[in-house]
Amino acid sequence: MADYGIQVTLALGFGESVERTRAALATQGFGVLTEIDVAATMKSKLDVDLPPYLILGACNPPLAHRAIELDASIGMLLPCNVVVRAIDDTHTLVEAMNPELMVSATGNVALAPIAADASSRLTAALDSLNGSTSDEAAATAR
Amino acid sequence: MADYGIQVTLALGFGESVERTRAALATQGFGVLTEIDVAATMKSKLDVDLPPYLILGACNPPLAHRAIELDASIGMLLPCNVVVRAIDDTHTLVEAMNPELMVSATGNVALAPIAADASSRLTAALDSLNGSTSDEAAATAR
Repeated sequence: MADYGIQVTLALGFGESVERTRAALATQGFGVLTEIDVAATMKSKLDVDLPPYLILGACNPPLAHRAIELDASIGMLLPCNVVVRAIDDTHTLVEAMNPELMVSATGNVALAPIAADASSRLTAALDSLNGSTSDEAAATAR
Repeated sequence: MADYGIQVTLALGFGESVERTRAALATQGFGVLTEIDVAATMKSKLDVDLPPYLILGACNPPLAHRAIELDASIGMLLPCNVVVRAIDDTHTLVEAMNPELMVSATGNVALAPIAADASSRLTAALDSLNGSTSDEAAATAR
């Protein structure tokens, strides 16, 4: 696991994982403001083949607003990216950027409570995905 | 200046700055894959007023592809965000996330040459904006 992220492996196909991830983020107050189909972009720009790979830009408006009030430049690190990428036909990885990076990158400790709140919501969202999948996925994520 | 970013102040209005920023990024091989109107989002979700504030998601496909080959999770830190935000009616700040953050956040030194390349292209793009503005903006950026 990349420690700059929060990760869960789902025993689900890619499309189903994307839908469940969106729903789990919404439950935690994150809207998806952007979506990048990385595989399609790489195919179109470079003619290379990647497994299905999506970057969802998740934003919790109240938290984002508080962060901008403390550091107007923080948009450089927003929204919180959530990567959904296929491992194989029946396994998908969901990885969220660890919002604590906002604190370590800026050195602004005033952002710490906001980062902690965002982090706990993203963790809850990813944890909730586990409950809807097979034991194997749950075991992988432990 | 936030040292997690590369910044320039333009003696230009917001709309003109956005257009020039897009063109400068394109010259350096960055396409804009995402665009978040932060001010409009905050108005619509929270009914708060912010000065014009845009986050452009800039991606240089060959660099992004090399980064993904080295660390498939790096999408959590892609694309490179470029913030364009109004200071007043005639001054606009343009700030790009420093791609070196990809190295410091991941601890993966193999990403260093890619981050350096992206960083020098973003710096060139922002420097080129200076040439098209008043002496005041150029002086601010020195």
